[in-house]
Amino acid sequence: MTRRELLTSMPLLAVSHAARAGPQLEIRAARLRQQIESLSAHGRPSGGSFSDGVSRIGYSDADIAGRKYVLSLVEAARLKARIDAAGNIFVRKPGTNAALSPVLFGSHIDSVPNGGNFDGDLGSLAAIEVLRVLGENGIVTRRPLEAVVWSCEEATFNGNTLNGSRAAAGKLRPGELEGVSRGLTLSESMRRIGGDPARLDETQLRSGAFHAYLELHIEQGGTLDKEGTSIGIVEGIVALDHYDAVITGMANHAGTTPMADRQDALLAAAQLTLAVREVVTQQPGPQVGTVGHLDVEPNASNVVPGRVRLSIDLRDLSTEKLRRLGEAIRARAAAIGAQTKTQIVLTQTQHAEPALASSEVKAVIQRAAAQLQLSHRSLPSGAVHDAQVMATVGPMGMIFVPSVGGISHSPQEVTSWEDCMRGANVLLQSVLALAA
Amino acid sequence: MTRRELLTSMPLLAVSHAARAGPQLEIRAARLRQQIESLSAHGRPSGGSFSDGVSRIGYSDADIAGRKYVLSLVEAARLKARIDAAGNIFVRKPGTNAALSPVLFGSHIDSVPNGGNFDGDLGSLAAIEVLRVLGENGIVTRRPLEAVVWSCEEATFNGNTLNGSRAAAGKLRPGELEGVSRGLTLSESMRRIGGDPARLDETQLRSGAFHAYLELHIEQGGTLDKEGTSIGIVEGIVALDHYDAVITGMANHAGTTPMADRQDALLAAAQLTLAVREVVTQQPGPQVGTVGHLDVEPNASNVVPGRVRLSIDLRDLSTEKLRRLGEAIRARAAAIGAQTKTQIVLTQTQHAEPALASSEVKAVIQRAAAQLQLSHRSLPSGAVHDAQVMATVGPMGMIFVPSVGGISHSPQEVTSWEDCMRGANVLLQSVLALAA
Repeated sequence: MTRRELLTSMPLLAVSHAARAGPQLEIRAARLRQQIESLSAHGRPSGGSFSDGVSRIGYSDADIAGRKYVLSLVEAARLKARIDAAGNIFVRKPGTNAALSPVLFGSHIDSVPNGGNFDGDLGSLAAIEVLRVLGENGIVTRRPLEAVVWSCEEATFNGNTLNGSRAAAGKLRPGELEGVSRGLTLSESMRRIGGDPARLDETQLRSGAFHAYLELHIEQGGTLDKEGTSIGIVEGIVALDHYDAVITGMANHAGTTPMADRQDALLAAAQLTLAVREVVTQQPGPQVGTVGHLDVEPNASNVVPGRVRLSIDLRDLSTEKLRRLGEAIRARAAAIGAQTKTQIVLTQTQHAEPALASSEVKAVIQRAAAQLQLSHRSLPSGAVHDAQVMATVGPMGMIFVPSVGGISHSPQEVTSWEDCMRGANVLLQSVLALAA
Repeated sequence: MTRRELLTSMPLLAVSHAARAGPQLEIRAARLRQQIESLSAHGRPSGGSFSDGVSRIGYSDADIAGRKYVLSLVEAARLKARIDAAGNIFVRKPGTNAALSPVLFGSHIDSVPNGGNFDGDLGSLAAIEVLRVLGENGIVTRRPLEAVVWSCEEATFNGNTLNGSRAAAGKLRPGELEGVSRGLTLSESMRRIGGDPARLDETQLRSGAFHAYLELHIEQGGTLDKEGTSIGIVEGIVALDHYDAVITGMANHAGTTPMADRQDALLAAAQLTLAVREVVTQQPGPQVGTVGHLDVEPNASNVVPGRVRLSIDLRDLSTEKLRRLGEAIRARAAAIGAQTKTQIVLTQTQHAEPALASSEVKAVIQRAAAQLQLSHRSLPSGAVHDAQVMATVGPMGMIFVPSVGGISHSPQEVTSWEDCMRGANVLLQSVLALAA
C-alpha cells in the first residue's frame, strides 16, 4: 500500500477524539533512545558496549538493577509504581472517570542469556514514556492509563516463560511456584523482586480488569524489515507445541565397534533433526519447527553416543496443523528408531493455544498508523508475548516494529531508532484512542 | 578351526623350552578373579556393585586407591615395585642372566568415566599374577621379567591418552606437561601418584630397553565373541585421525525466523554427522568413523542454534585410507556449509600412526594359544593401547580375549572369567617362551 492509497483508504471513523488531540503530540524520541541505552548497561557483558547485547535473566541481579532503573524513570515522570504479588511493576495515571477500567499497556525488561536490547525493553520504556509525555502536556484521558513491566517473560533455565503475566492472570500451573530455577523456587524468585506470591490470588487480574491491553514489541522476524513496512498489526500469537525426544542407543568404544553393530543415539538424533525440518517444510505456510536443544551422553569423542535428549518446538496459528506436524514427526521418529536400532521416546511437554488479537484493538492500531502516515500490515506473531496471556483476560492488541534482518534473541538484535519512535507514537495514539 | 585341526596345524617349532616347562603350570584363576573384583571397589559408584562399573580416572583419588591395592598384590607376591618418573609401576623378577634385557608385560588400571572392570585391569593384574605364580612354583627364567602398570592410559578431560607409556617412551609433546586437566597440570598429576617428571629424561625407555613387550587386553569389539574364538592375536593397532568441526550459523528466534531464512548450525551438524557415516561405510572394510562429542550454542529449545562444535574420530590400519576418508568428509562439509548457509571449519587435531605387532611375538602368542588348545585368530585393534607406544621402543605383541557383545567403555563391559583365565595363561606361556 502506498502512502496515498493508505490515506485514501482511511475510514472517516479514524478521526477520533485522540486523533483530534494528538497529531502534534509525540513521544520524545531522543529521551526514549537514551533510556533504552541506559537500561542496556544492566546485564551487559563485562567490558562490552550497547552492541554486545545483554544477559538480564528474570529475577537475576541484573534484572533487579534494571527494574531499579525503570523505577527511577517512573519517579522522573512524577508517577508512582506499584509492585503486584508476582513482582510485576504497574504505573497508573488516573483518568477523568475513576469508575472506568484502565487501558493497560507495557512489556518486559528481562532478556534471554546473550540477548538483545530491544526485545521487551522498547515496549516497557515506551509505555512509561507515553505516560510521561501525556503528563508533561497536561493531558488527562477519560479512562485511567496503566503502564506495566511484566516480570520474567523469557524462559528461565527450567523452561517456564511468561511468569509475571501468567501469575497476574492466575495461569500458573499447580506446583509451578515450587519449581526451581537457578537455585531458587519461583516463589523465592518473586519475593526477590518485591513480590508476595502468597497474595497472588487477591491481586489476580480477572475479566474486566482492563478495557484493552496493548503491547509494542519488535517483530523478531524479518517480514517488516524485508518489505520496508514500518508497523505490524498483530493478528494473533501462534500456538506452540513442545516435544522432548529421548533417544537411547548403546554407548560403545568408537574404535572397536564395527559400523554395522552400532546403536548410535546421535546418528538417530541427526536423522530426527533433519526429519523435523522436512516435515515442517513439506507444505507451504508460515509454520516453523526447531531442534534448539540437544545433549549427548557420554559426549566423548572416543565413545559411540549412548543417549541423546533433544527438544522439538513447533509453532503455527493453527492448533490443528501443529497436531498433524507432531503426528508426522512421531511417525518419522518410529522409523528412525527401527532403522538405527535405537529407542526414541517422544513426549509432548507443552501446548500453548493461539491467542487472537481483538478486532477492535487491531482497528485502533491501524487507524493510528494510518493517521501517522506510516506503512503497515497485518501479520502473526511467531514469538510468545505477555500479550497472549492478557488475551485470556480481555481485548488485546500488539504493535510490531521492524527487526533488522529479522534477528532477535541475539546481541545483533537491532531496531532503528526511527522505527522505535514510530512504534512508540503508534502506541501513544492507540492508547489515546482507547482511553477516550 | 576345530580343536583337532588346531592341534594338527601346530608347527613342531611350538615345542619350545617354555612349552616343555609349562603345560601343567597355570595362573590361579580364582585368585585373579578375586583381585579384579577387589580392584573394582576403587572408583565404584556409591552404593553400587561390580556390575555397576567404575570411574577410576587417571591421577584421581580412586586411581591412587587402586594403585595402592596393586602395590599390596606386589607385596603378596614377595616382589618389589618401582615407580618411574611418570608414575608407572614396574615390578621386576630377576632372571638367571642379569645382562639380558627383560620381557616387559602389563597394561593399565585407570578407566574412562563410567567404564568397565576389565579394560586394563585384566592385563595389569594378570601380569602380576604371572610373576606370582612363577615365584610360587620356583621358576626362574633366563631373562628378567618385568610387569608394568602404566599410569593414565585413558583420555583425561583435556583429551590426552596413553600418558604414562608415552612419558616413559619420551613421546610427550612439547608443553604437554604443563597442560591442565581436572585442575592440575600433567606434571602435578604425575607427582600426585609418586612420579617425578623432572627425571623423565633419565628414566626414558630407549631402544633395547626390553626384549619384547606383551599386553593382555579385552578386545573391546565383538569379533571374538561373535565367532566364539578364545584368543585374538593382534596384528597391529589402527591409525587414528581426529578432527574438530566448528559450525557457525546464526542464532535466532525459533518462533519468528522463517524456515527459509535460517542459518541453523545444528541442521548442518546433523547433515555432517550423517555424512561421516556415509563416507566411512561407502567402501567395504573395517574402518570406523564416529561423531561422539557434540555441543550446541546457545542450546535453548526456543533459539535456532547459532554454533555447534563436534568431533570426528576416524580409525583404520591404513593411514592412506584415513587420509582419503578425511578428504571426502571435508568435501561433504563444504557442500553442507554452502547448502545450509553456515560456515564449517574442520581442523585435524590428532594423527596417530598405526603400530604393527612384531611377527616373532605374534608367532610366540600363536604357539602358546595352540599349545593350550585354544581357538585363536589374528585381528586388528581398533582401540588405542599402551602397546602402540611400546611398539616405538621394541618388539610388541598383544593378546585379546572376547568382550561379551563387544561392549566396552561401559559398565556393561564383561569378559567371562573363563576367558580371563585363558588369556592370562596365554600371557604366562608367551612370557615363558620369550624369556627362555
